[in-house]
Amino acid sequence: MGEPTRFGIMGCAGIARKVSRAIKLSPNATVVAIGSRNAEKAHRFIKDNGLPENTQVHGSYESLLDDPDVDAVHMPLPTSLHLRWGVAAATKGKHILLEKPTALCVAELDQILQACEVNNVQFMDGTMWMHHPRTAKMNELLRQQHSDLFGQLRMVNSIASFYAKPDFLHNNIRVMPDLDSLGALGDLGWYCIRFILWAADYCLPTTAVAFPNPVKNEAGLLLSCGASLHWENGTVATFHCSFLAHRTFEVAVVGSKGTLTLSDFVNPFDENSARFTFASESSFKELVDGWKPSLPTNHVVSTELPQEACMISEFSRLVGAIKDGSKPEKKWPSISRKNQIVMDAVKDSIDKESKPVEIVG
Amino acid sequence: MGEPTRFGIMGCAGIARKVSRAIKLSPNATVVAIGSRNAEKAHRFIKDNGLPENTQVHGSYESLLDDPDVDAVHMPLPTSLHLRWGVAAATKGKHILLEKPTALCVAELDQILQACEVNNVQFMDGTMWMHHPRTAKMNELLRQQHSDLFGQLRMVNSIASFYAKPDFLHNNIRVMPDLDSLGALGDLGWYCIRFILWAADYCLPTTAVAFPNPVKNEAGLLLSCGASLHWENGTVATFHCSFLAHRTFEVAVVGSKGTLTLSDFVNPFDENSARFTFASESSFKELVDGWKPSLPTNHVVSTELPQEACMISEFSRLVGAIKDGSKPEKKWPSISRKNQIVMDAVKDSIDKESKPVEIVG
Repeated sequence: MGEPTRFGIMGCAGIARKVSRAIKLSPNATVVAIGSRNAEKAHRFIKDNGLPENTQVHGSYESLLDDPDVDAVHMPLPTSLHLRWGVAAATKGKHILLEKPTALCVAELDQILQACEVNNVQFMDGTMWMHHPRTAKMNELLRQQHSDLFGQLRMVNSIASFYAKPDFLHNNIRVMPDLDSLGALGDLGWYCIRFILWAADYCLPTTAVAFPNPVKNEAGLLLSCGASLHWENGTVATFHCSFLAHRTFEVAVVGSKGTLTLSDFVNPFDENSARFTFASESSFKELVDGWKPSLPTNHVVSTELPQEACMISEFSRLVGAIKDGSKPEKKWPSISRKNQIVMDAVKDSIDKESKPVEIVG
Repeated sequence: MGEPTRFGIMGCAGIARKVSRAIKLSPNATVVAIGSRNAEKAHRFIKDNGLPENTQVHGSYESLLDDPDVDAVHMPLPTSLHLRWGVAAATKGKHILLEKPTALCVAELDQILQACEVNNVQFMDGTMWMHHPRTAKMNELLRQQHSDLFGQLRMVNSIASFYAKPDFLHNNIRVMPDLDSLGALGDLGWYCIRFILWAADYCLPTTAVAFPNPVKNEAGLLLSCGASLHWENGTVATFHCSFLAHRTFEVAVVGSKGTLTLSDFVNPFDENSARFTFASESSFKELVDGWKPSLPTNHVVSTELPQEACMISEFSRLVGAIKDGSKPEKKWPSISRKNQIVMDAVKDSIDKESKPVEIVG
């Protein structure tokens, strides 16, 4: 393993605390700089999160991006700022770990991705659960070694919600039109769409139909919404995302031969061991007085590193490979782009009062 | 407890085997007659299911309905025959336990229910899970003693499916237009809609929107379909029912403060003890590195009688009360009627290529 990837963190957002801990936990990454207009806040952030004392504090994002000791940036900025700072970071040759949602729309994301490609930098969005070994294990069951146990995908249900306090619903950046105009769809629906795409092996649905009656706040921001997604062969996915419902991260995936469920898909109940259930070729007993097998199998997948540190490690590995002459890994921007395309279609259907919207890849 | 309710069973359908066992298990019910044009089949049914040797065999349904020793009939006939035989049974003063779906449409069901009312007989449909003590326990958590743990309903997801063999998809009565023209919607969607109505405390949704691209067989029968249901306040329910997906009976119910899930809502994995999970006021730990509480609570509800015997017992109790001068219990026909109304709206939306259909109670 070569030198660790040196991270600069843009701002001191709540999620940056979690990511800075993940960088500390990752053997191939380190925090070297913080960018914040508020120097006092930045120094407190460094202290509170146990970052190295010599972590550089930059008074502006520009200055952070000009720092030659920074290889990569973690960008937990409001979505409306992603275009400007994503392009700026790539142009300065910084690899980008961008928080979700990646952009306000795919046209904006494409500008960021193009800047990354031109400048030969790695792009990855901050969807942490993708990097948990549980996801790899589920992938084996759905698609790889054991795909005969699951068969063909038929149905995915996904729910991502938490019950926000009144203050959040009016004042948090995630519900402010000029900062995060996608509301619950961007903050939570992003995860549902990602899970659905993951379950569909990234085959885009052909149509999105938003649920009627989405709930908005007085500024018109989405607090609760959902949609169904459809493929030509009859496969269906639904999702519901909400700031108004109990904390729930529930998914069910049904194939022709198997069913997979988990209740904490975005953030595991326990960071060191995560569960899911899987059943295959279940049937009823003769008099329908019970099932064969009697219960789905409970799988437990342990991990030494929490999923966010797995993410940092994978991102840093790719950055290291680029330093050694490899090209950036295209899988990650490609998945982000599909996620954004589907989110755009859902938003479009919401804006068109639930008219079906065709999804074009 | 008075005399047991004396059942006549119309036909020898597969489900009648399960129900005849349930009648045997119920302390207040007994089988006294079978109606079947095939006497040999009827005698074999009696023997195979350990029914009393003196069980009367009637060569026609008319004859069964004329039998003065029959108090009540279990009617597991193809749906298209329910109107004729439901009205006939009520007119003969027989209490009716009618298999689901109750009718081809609510206009037909209303004729059956009117005949029941005029003739002072009890009506109940054969939705067994309603009678499991698990359902009562969940009801406590969602609505009664502990409703502060659940809060207001926001979202219900429901899946009911099994993977039918090719022979079933072409030849089973459940996919024959002249016998069961509702296909998977009638056979499985019925349960999903019932669960959704149960979760909504029988408050009808205002709109049904069928998912596009339902899968049909060559005769035009629904093999796989689904819909979203909507209430004015933004509450959403979705369901998916299919003869083409792995056996799955998964539901998730999310309120403002709590989440309930179960994976075997139609038929418990084990007939003597049934599970569900419930979480209330869950939150993340400070760094989102786990949950508080760490896991949803796993509830296990034991029952001496399987749910179908609980159903027979409750039905027979009501029949006994009517013998003693009570009026029929209106709750059951009222719930069946709402179930049918929503199913009609979904079917209508399917037929109208997913146009939203207003639900009128």
